[in-house]
Amino acid sequence: MKFSLFAAGLCLSFTLHAQSDKPFAIAVHGGAGYAGNLSEAKQASYKAGIQKALDKGYEILSKGGTSVDAVQAAVMLLEDDSLFNAGKGSVFTHAGKNEMDAAIMDGSNLKAGSVAGITIVKNPITAARVVMDKTMHVMMIGKGAEALAGENNCEIVKPSYFFTQHSWDALKNALKREAEQRENNKKKSSLLQPDNYDEKYGTVGAVALDKSGNLAAATSTGGMSNKKPGRVGDAPLIGIGTYASDVCAISCTGWGEYYIRLVMAKSVSDRIEFKGMSINDAANEMILQKLPALGGDGGMIAIDKQGNITMPFNTGSMFRGFKKSSGDTEVKIYKD
Amino acid sequence: MKFSLFAAGLCLSFTLHAQSDKPFAIAVHGGAGYAGNLSEAKQASYKAGIQKALDKGYEILSKGGTSVDAVQAAVMLLEDDSLFNAGKGSVFTHAGKNEMDAAIMDGSNLKAGSVAGITIVKNPITAARVVMDKTMHVMMIGKGAEALAGENNCEIVKPSYFFTQHSWDALKNALKREAEQRENNKKKSSLLQPDNYDEKYGTVGAVALDKSGNLAAATSTGGMSNKKPGRVGDAPLIGIGTYASDVCAISCTGWGEYYIRLVMAKSVSDRIEFKGMSINDAANEMILQKLPALGGDGGMIAIDKQGNITMPFNTGSMFRGFKKSSGDTEVKIYKD
Repeated sequence: MKFSLFAAGLCLSFTLHAQSDKPFAIAVHGGAGYAGNLSEAKQASYKAGIQKALDKGYEILSKGGTSVDAVQAAVMLLEDDSLFNAGKGSVFTHAGKNEMDAAIMDGSNLKAGSVAGITIVKNPITAARVVMDKTMHVMMIGKGAEALAGENNCEIVKPSYFFTQHSWDALKNALKREAEQRENNKKKSSLLQPDNYDEKYGTVGAVALDKSGNLAAATSTGGMSNKKPGRVGDAPLIGIGTYASDVCAISCTGWGEYYIRLVMAKSVSDRIEFKGMSINDAANEMILQKLPALGGDGGMIAIDKQGNITMPFNTGSMFRGFKKSSGDTEVKIYKD
Repeated sequence: MKFSLFAAGLCLSFTLHAQSDKPFAIAVHGGAGYAGNLSEAKQASYKAGIQKALDKGYEILSKGGTSVDAVQAAVMLLEDDSLFNAGKGSVFTHAGKNEMDAAIMDGSNLKAGSVAGITIVKNPITAARVVMDKTMHVMMIGKGAEALAGENNCEIVKPSYFFTQHSWDALKNALKREAEQRENNKKKSSLLQPDNYDEKYGTVGAVALDKSGNLAAATSTGGMSNKKPGRVGDAPLIGIGTYASDVCAISCTGWGEYYIRLVMAKSVSDRIEFKGMSINDAANEMILQKLPALGGDGGMIAIDKQGNITMPFNTGSMFRGFKKSSGDTEVKIYKD
């Protein structure tokens, strides 16, 4: 009897030890772009937003929560922070509305949920989660997605909730410049390319590895300022802006059209799985070589099954950070 | 002089010969599913629809037209044929409407265009082409996509154009069975799985290789009968239901949610590019192993740079055919 109790104790001790040794980690981003002239105070605000999201996700992971719950919670905080182009801080379409997209994916079972073109759900990532958990579908758009979210206890707000002076000014500036360009007859208006940070970029996202070894990813965005109504970028597209499997979890930010054409996230994942590349090399090849070769720019955050994290970008800046169970952590905006 | 004319003649002859030797080919599908009880007459009708689309695309290719033009023309004919679930033959959503999706991709430059949730464009593939050719975007949804299509000379019709008795009856049957199931309280209605051919399947698509060696793919669908309004399947998603590069061109048909979770088309392409698999082996691994392992079913058509074509499916049937410059051709429904 004494012996078996002793053996049971040893066994318990071993199990606890093994569990606590399992690495876990989270990384988040608040968009890649060209935030070149941020004041020290503004930089501190962005970093605080990233840190808050990291801390929340890390807390969930450290208590044994799932990577899916961690990435959702982190993204919700970034959606609620009007500094970032997602949820509350979303930019305006050409028609002066906010149309938001989001996606979430559970790498443990390849389940995924995605919404696009929604206008009244306070936290678009919660609507994506409902699609994943409560329906037989993966992607839902527009009023159908909003109705589903409303039926499933997502918080519904008036479209005016998403108004921020910052985003409104960005649209006004874009429309003014568009009118000037049209006057100059340089290009047809439908072919205009966005040309500054506020218009082209901005997305938030998170990737995580939990104590059970499962990966997850989530991304949410207000899209591109002055975009045509109905435009969908890479964020809500599974395998493109958002992806998680048993190989890696990825959330992208950048000029979405180029990410779609490259099928960005799956291209990184398959380089790891089929070519044996490290997550760092695979992400770098896509973001630093293939993306600019096609004419696009942006960044991504990615994590693999071992908790290795990479956060490459070929723009001037990317609001980003990570926090690992090893104690290693970082929050940065620029390259250094 | 005599010699140089002779040499020039030789050269010209060689050039003409080289061009005419360049292989070209097209494959089309009209949906994978369980069309088990088709009469001989009905089978002949489906085969005639497939043959007509093949002939049209082949004619364009044989005259030196591009693979993009060939796949678009083939898909337009299938959209106009009420037998197939795309364009005129589209199925109804749960709300009794027709919501259509389509995508087209040019493998020569990775340009792509995609639309989802459109209700008034006679040929949804033409709207996808407009997004690719006339905008800086890749994917557009709902009213924004419809407005763009209207501005760019796509034919606009009333929603009633898409009514077919066949699709309406399929919805009525699905709603009746759903009510019975709810009464039996077997499952929550939101988790109901579609369970017969007419509800779950139906898509049309084409892939082609032109004389210049360029690949293209196009897919169009009315989606899943009795689907929730706003549901988007794999068809309009680049790298999933539709993909073309300098490796291969792919159009998928099947239970879209599983195709999205597997990032189907890119998974096949990367197996060819990174693992050196043949297009046949790569497509078979995904459609005959990975897809059913996750619980899904369906098929795909795929063509590579050499004009090799594969058309695997793990359902009972797939309306399909191909036509190659070698003279090899086939139109089939069942496995035989």
